[in-house]
Amino acid sequence: MTKPTLIALLHGPDQPGLVARVAGWIFERGGNILHADQHRDMEAGIFFQRVEWEPAFVPPAEGTPGAAVEQSRLRSVAAAEAEFTRFAREELRMAVRIVSSIDRPRVAVFVSKADHCFHDLILRWKAGDFRCDLATIVSNHADLGDVTRGYGLAFHHIPVTADTKTAAEAQQLELLRSLRVELVVLARYMQVLSADFLEKRGGPVINIHHSFLPAFAGGRPYHQAHTRGVKLIGATAHYATRDLDEGPIIHQDVARVTHRHGVDDLVRKGRDLERVVLAQAVRWHLEGRVLVYGNKTVVFD
Amino acid sequence: MTKPTLIALLHGPDQPGLVARVAGWIFERGGNILHADQHRDMEAGIFFQRVEWEPAFVPPAEGTPGAAVEQSRLRSVAAAEAEFTRFAREELRMAVRIVSSIDRPRVAVFVSKADHCFHDLILRWKAGDFRCDLATIVSNHADLGDVTRGYGLAFHHIPVTADTKTAAEAQQLELLRSLRVELVVLARYMQVLSADFLEKRGGPVINIHHSFLPAFAGGRPYHQAHTRGVKLIGATAHYATRDLDEGPIIHQDVARVTHRHGVDDLVRKGRDLERVVLAQAVRWHLEGRVLVYGNKTVVFD
Amino acid sequence: MTKPTLIALLHGPDQPGLVARVAGWIFERGGNILHADQHRDMEAGIFFQRVEWEPAFVPPAEGTPGAAVEQSRLRSVAAAEAEFTRFAREELRMAVRIVSSIDRPRVAVFVSKADHCFHDLILRWKAGDFRCDLATIVSNHADLGDVTRGYGLAFHHIPVTADTKTAAEAQQLELLRSLRVELVVLARYMQVLSADFLEKRGGPVINIHHSFLPAFAGGRPYHQAHTRGVKLIGATAHYATRDLDEGPIIHQDVARVTHRHGVDDLVRKGRDLERVVLAQAVRWHLEGRVLVYGNKTVVFD
Amino acid sequence: MTKPTLIALLHGPDQPGLVARVAGWIFERGGNILHADQHRDMEAGIFFQRVEWEPAFVPPAEGTPGAAVEQSRLRSVAAAEAEFTRFAREELRMAVRIVSSIDRPRVAVFVSKADHCFHDLILRWKAGDFRCDLATIVSNHADLGDVTRGYGLAFHHIPVTADTKTAAEAQQLELLRSLRVELVVLARYMQVLSADFLEKRGGPVINIHHSFLPAFAGGRPYHQAHTRGVKLIGATAHYATRDLDEGPIIHQDVARVTHRHGVDDLVRKGRDLERVVLAQAVRWHLEGRVLVYGNKTVVFD
Repeated sequence: MTKPTLIALLHGPDQPGLVARVAGWIFERGGNILHADQHRDMEAGIFFQRVEWEPAFVPPAEGTPGAAVEQSRLRSVAAAEAEFTRFAREELRMAVRIVSSIDRPRVAVFVSKADHCFHDLILRWKAGDFRCDLATIVSNHADLGDVTRGYGLAFHHIPVTADTKTAAEAQQLELLRSLRVELVVLARYMQVLSADFLEKRGGPVINIHHSFLPAFAGGRPYHQAHTRGVKLIGATAHYATRDLDEGPIIHQDVARVTHRHGVDDLVRKGRDLERVVLAQAVRWHLEGRVLVYGNKTVVFD
Repeated sequence: MTKPTLIALLHGPDQPGLVARVAGWIFERGGNILHADQHRDMEAGIFFQRVEWEPAFVPPAEGTPGAAVEQSRLRSVAAAEAEFTRFAREELRMAVRIVSSIDRPRVAVFVSKADHCFHDLILRWKAGDFRCDLATIVSNHADLGDVTRGYGLAFHHIPVTADTKTAAEAQQLELLRSLRVELVVLARYMQVLSADFLEKRGGPVINIHHSFLPAFAGGRPYHQAHTRGVKLIGATAHYATRDLDEGPIIHQDVARVTHRHGVDDLVRKGRDLERVVLAQAVRWHLEGRVLVYGNKTVVFD
Repeated sequence: MTKPTLIALLHGPDQPGLVARVAGWIFERGGNILHADQHRDMEAGIFFQRVEWEPAFVPPAEGTPGAAVEQSRLRSVAAAEAEFTRFAREELRMAVRIVSSIDRPRVAVFVSKADHCFHDLILRWKAGDFRCDLATIVSNHADLGDVTRGYGLAFHHIPVTADTKTAAEAQQLELLRSLRVELVVLARYMQVLSADFLEKRGGPVINIHHSFLPAFAGGRPYHQAHTRGVKLIGATAHYATRDLDEGPIIHQDVARVTHRHGVDDLVRKGRDLERVVLAQAVRWHLEGRVLVYGNKTVVFD
Repeated sequence: MTKPTLIALLHGPDQPGLVARVAGWIFERGGNILHADQHRDMEAGIFFQRVEWEPAFVPPAEGTPGAAVEQSRLRSVAAAEAEFTRFAREELRMAVRIVSSIDRPRVAVFVSKADHCFHDLILRWKAGDFRCDLATIVSNHADLGDVTRGYGLAFHHIPVTADTKTAAEAQQLELLRSLRVELVVLARYMQVLSADFLEKRGGPVINIHHSFLPAFAGGRPYHQAHTRGVKLIGATAHYATRDLDEGPIIHQDVARVTHRHGVDDLVRKGRDLERVVLAQAVRWHLEGRVLVYGNKTVVFD
């Protein structure tokens, strides 16, 4: 059986001995570091670290029933998580986020009518690629309702018009709260989320933009790309922020196109890019590999 | 011995039977088509063709001296070129450009201080990759003079300041005219050529921009890329036009970067992209593979 | 409404005037060439051409009912197909295969338990990427039966063991015959088809091999790749022949891996490659872009 | 002024607390860790680490002359290197290699007639991309002698025939010894080095093979690739071992080719791959980023 692990993502002002202090803290408490990766932004003087370890576990006395052992183990991991968090914040004065292998974060996927990222995310999730629960699919259209239910997943249809946008967003926020959703993934969701929504939401929102940002921000990027006559098209997964298409970039990729490709071909080829780029970004996020600072990301891949 | 070939690049309003008429014209005159490639821009209703053929040659009577046979062959190719041009313009009403294997176009390379594209172009040229003559290297700095002469090539140092720009450009134009230069290649030449220069120049000018245009147009693109936190950097070879960084794109490529790469690393990695992308664009141009229309290119690769 | 088109794939010994004769034949009969692409293998002296055109259609007298007009159009396209085939074979002495836009070839997909290519092909087909009918899914395991039927497609479970292989292949052949299947796609079908099967089958069989062939032919290629410590993994779509993993290659792609990737990671990353490479090969085949000669392919993309 | 740094590459059987012990050792001695990266091969139970740090330096009393300060600093770095080596071997029982920023390793480049990697390595070295001294160029042909001397570098012509191979290798070994060469780079050197040479040599030898190994090992890989009809060609940089083309792979890359590319085109396109792949491998080696174990590499990039 796999032992539980904790992954800590730390960042803050650089100071001497951080690597040693983190490693020492874990070692002294009997933990076993599996991976540790760090980065320094020399200009900004910021230190970043991702460290993954198995916390120590002293099993209860021989003869304790299995369920009680398991309970004990869970309490032990939760305690290690709390202690490390306190250590990082109070002693190291670093910002910290912890991903625990005993948790399964709850994810909501927002879609409209395009279904390529939708199917792709669900099939990968069913294949075990993402360690999370798919709490619900949310859409401003009813089109993907049946197929969602066919997958055995919940579907919430929340229509959005210019007039009802504020109310619809309130409904979405309430839904996310009630389902205890941690991560929202916009899988070609064709509505712009308001700054107000993002602020009230708080948690991370990953979006896929169908261009190689910052080229062709805004609407109809494949049309823009075709008009400009570029020789590569791209896709960009980023955290959504109040500045449309300006959020921290997590992942990007491109594909070659030629004069033979019309806009329809770009759209079709782009679907492959969007699928793979979005899935990779979601996976990295769930594995605690992405650290945001300023408007950039550090990706410990 | 390789037989001489002609390459015609045609474009104009689409009309029925163009492929048949071009192929028929060549076939009836005893020519042998080696390659033919066409493209239709359905929206714009424009037809594009690249056709490469060996024109017929009736050798003079047995016993004619070799040099006279060769003269006869050259005249024959030149005649075929002239006839086809007339056919394309007057009968097909198409724009046409012909690249003849018996010509070696004369090329000038403009450089400043950065020497990676400079060395790369010269070494490829020496290796026989480009069918052209390197008429001269032109620079606004003296730095690369010695190494240019070490390669056995001519070097013209024409300094440019804000005050002398007009005079310097006049001097450059005169130099290009006197050397009968057909193609100008800007190999990280750090001066913006004026609209006036480009208009007077007339002929093609290929530039390498060190970003994935249209992202990061303008100055210091690697700094812009680093600030934005993109995960890919690029390079773009394009024809220079009066609209800076807006000319028709010939070729683009990208390379992956991470948070570990500082601006210096982007510059270093970018050099490899710039070298390869510029060399490919120059090669395609010299092989008559690039057709410009509007602000886009058709590349028959 | 889109006009019907014919695509001819021709190849045979090179001879003067082939381009002109094909274009002339179509033009004289009122056809309109949309695309034409040719290639010469200089060493082998073989000429290859893909030409796509709208055959002429003289509509019946005004007032003819729509259905009768449509019948007339279909007959006209079928006649043009037959005439061109005769012309190519008897006059040009070339091998020819014609893809007509009024036909929808029938395709069978063979699968085992892995479902990533299976879902991918079906979802692309539903999205309209492939012009074909999915006649059936065939599997040596029952696992994908329910989800296939959930897609509204037929599923045939034909178990295969060492003892029953001959009988199972006979059953597969009979099924393909009765369903008039033109193309078989092996979407990670984990049984080797016998030389006898392939010979009796006759028609094309496309396979996806999960390595960059010819590296790591045979079984467990990701294990082989991991053992050898390569820095790129690949996938190869090829036509199946009696020589296992030796058939003509249609398409290949690779992805970067590092020492951090275990065999499981290679398998997971490889799934994305396999999906995209197989789908592209199937699409090219259905669009009449792939021409086999000897053990190689010409792909007119 | 940049402070001196040490880079340690460690590997050996995994044991608890290694990260903490290494970091603690450096921290306790006043060192400042700049980067640390580790990897565990779970199957093999091996731990790998690359750690880069600035060792502490207590400057001599105020008023000490600059040269004496500099001497003191060099002694201090050398002492830290020796102490860490002892610590790693004796206390951690790990294999260790240290790259010190105050050393400049001496490199010999072996070439034959092909000059693309030759020019590329020298130009990158002149541009400051490699932290090393180019001790000499060695060739079995005289062709590149003049251009080497034109670069201001030493050139040794050591002809090799079947009969003289043993003597020639002895001469090469003696040359490398006398020049205190640490790294040998085979830049398309067309002679196979004997197992005896490699054993006597001892130090690392990096080779560039012009295929995507293990595909097309042995001679004339571009011909092999053309015959097989692959759609991608590759290049592989690896450490030379007594098993030809079987040594640990450092880096690989590929480029797309089509049926239009003859062997000559593959050779030409391959040159770009070979240049970039070899240069990257040499750079990673010199930066202490490559750790060999068994027949594989760990590359901390």
